[in-house]
Amino acid sequence: MNVRLGITIGDSSGIGPEILLKAFSEGLISQRFVAFGDSSVLRYYNDLLGYEVKVRITSSATDLVRGSLNVIDAGLMAEGDVTPGKLSRESGAAAREYVVRATKAAISGEIGAVVTLPMNKEATQLSDSNFVGHTELIGALCGSKDVTIMLASDDLIVTHVSTHVSLLEAIALVKRERIQTIIGLTAGAVGRLKANPRIAVAGLNPHAGENGLFGDEEIREIRPAVEWAKARGIPVSGPFPPDTLFYLAARRKQFDAIVCMHHDQGHVPLKLLDFEGGVNISLGLPIIRTSVDHGTAFDIAGKGVASTTSLLKAIEYAVRLSS
Amino acid sequence: MNVRLGITIGDSSGIGPEILLKAFSEGLISQRFVAFGDSSVLRYYNDLLGYEVKVRITSSATDLVRGSLNVIDAGLMAEGDVTPGKLSRESGAAAREYVVRATKAAISGEIGAVVTLPMNKEATQLSDSNFVGHTELIGALCGSKDVTIMLASDDLIVTHVSTHVSLLEAIALVKRERIQTIIGLTAGAVGRLKANPRIAVAGLNPHAGENGLFGDEEIREIRPAVEWAKARGIPVSGPFPPDTLFYLAARRKQFDAIVCMHHDQGHVPLKLLDFEGGVNISLGLPIIRTSVDHGTAFDIAGKGVASTTSLLKAIEYAVRLSS
Repeated sequence: MNVRLGITIGDSSGIGPEILLKAFSEGLISQRFVAFGDSSVLRYYNDLLGYEVKVRITSSATDLVRGSLNVIDAGLMAEGDVTPGKLSRESGAAAREYVVRATKAAISGEIGAVVTLPMNKEATQLSDSNFVGHTELIGALCGSKDVTIMLASDDLIVTHVSTHVSLLEAIALVKRERIQTIIGLTAGAVGRLKANPRIAVAGLNPHAGENGLFGDEEIREIRPAVEWAKARGIPVSGPFPPDTLFYLAARRKQFDAIVCMHHDQGHVPLKLLDFEGGVNISLGLPIIRTSVDHGTAFDIAGKGVASTTSLLKAIEYAVRLSS
Repeated sequence: MNVRLGITIGDSSGIGPEILLKAFSEGLISQRFVAFGDSSVLRYYNDLLGYEVKVRITSSATDLVRGSLNVIDAGLMAEGDVTPGKLSRESGAAAREYVVRATKAAISGEIGAVVTLPMNKEATQLSDSNFVGHTELIGALCGSKDVTIMLASDDLIVTHVSTHVSLLEAIALVKRERIQTIIGLTAGAVGRLKANPRIAVAGLNPHAGENGLFGDEEIREIRPAVEWAKARGIPVSGPFPPDTLFYLAARRKQFDAIVCMHHDQGHVPLKLLDFEGGVNISLGLPIIRTSVDHGTAFDIAGKGVASTTSLLKAIEYAVRLSS
């Protein structure tokens, strides 16, 4: 519980800064943290929405004052630069820089975990055309290659063999070695969240292929990966027919996490169960990083109506993974 | 509400016959119906479980006696032939024959709709190696080719561009013409269930491909099919990113039905929302046919513990589709 977090404020045109201010002003963040962002952005939303938070610039995550929102100031944005809802090259580039600084602070051990608020991909691509997403950026900074996303909600935890690729390409990525890696990362992370985790692996095809009747990836790739992991003592089973597996895990509590074969296999049930409270956790990094599971929501930025639920859950998971 | 239903009792080794007896004995079936099955099978489970239902053989669906469970007797099974939980060539062949008779009665107009209880694919294949499933059998008897399955629960209705094929083959079936057919069938059926239906079409790829960034089926096939349908006055929109669409339909009530691009895209969320109360509805037939959304459950057959929820919902939907 003693871990010091770094929270990036995200794109200043989106809902990230105001969510952090709102949660802080309502006393909902008991964990020690330092924000990575621009103090001007926080002051802008603080004034706009009347949160009366004391925003304090600090030069180090070890110099924190209780009762203030301590921020490591990037000095990239002025208050006049902030426009809620506006796609902006400047805010996109600044949001990227906050993440770079927080990641470096985590690598150096200055902070124990990074929690990120949303960036806007399109905005950041205006200054960095190679930008794909938070996870890829942090992975590159850490020199990690087998990075993947775990989505967690109260009812269900899912990981994915692939994420942002076409479904056709996702099928091609259902390979024994990759599945073994994801099973290992999943078991490691879930094991930090609870004792005696039970990991299930989903099939790829309807009814998990019905013994090869429609699709043989279960036979060729998935089952051998599960057997490999079992032989190493990992508490995993499967592959299971997808259409009943999510019910068995989320409703009957038969499993703690499901390794999914593609993006939507896990995202559809998770968002159906918990649309606002989902948390995005990076696996395969040398640092701990969690994120809200929503975007910049430009349409409601600056209105003070965005939910703090996902941020609070992201903080909770960062702390649990750190202990 | 005046429609006369035909209910097939399913494989006599499974839970079909006892579910029908249980629902009838508890007075839960107010609709006029005739059972298609073997009176001996119904008598066997009636005695075994002590339901005290009056089983009455009738030669015609127009000759029904209130207070009795009227059955058109196939004369294929004796009471001694029934063994709960046993995979049997005889019970598999008999279950197939009940469906053939009920379908013919629906085609002739003797009954207004068919409701089916579960067959066991493996058992029926012992006498008919070409048997794939209920839907295909009834489709062949009706001479229909574009048959598809609609799954309905209280929170969500889904149809599918393909069902029991590998995911790789399912992607190859995401073709404009097929999607147009399924949109049309979906709109027709949902329009019978409620006024002013709102149909959504799911994308195939994560984030519906993000404008072709990962996968172009949305651009090549799905969007043109949606535009084609819109131009014909069908109340449809999409393609939408799958990971939020099911939430928007089921929780926010923004849509009444979702056209899914493959089996599990619809089955995973539907079974998560309503595991026991789902109904399977055939579309593209000249007759009305609904089915329970569960199997023979050999492991609990003859124990009197199987739920009648799905049967009662299947009856409800058969009546609603008939009116």
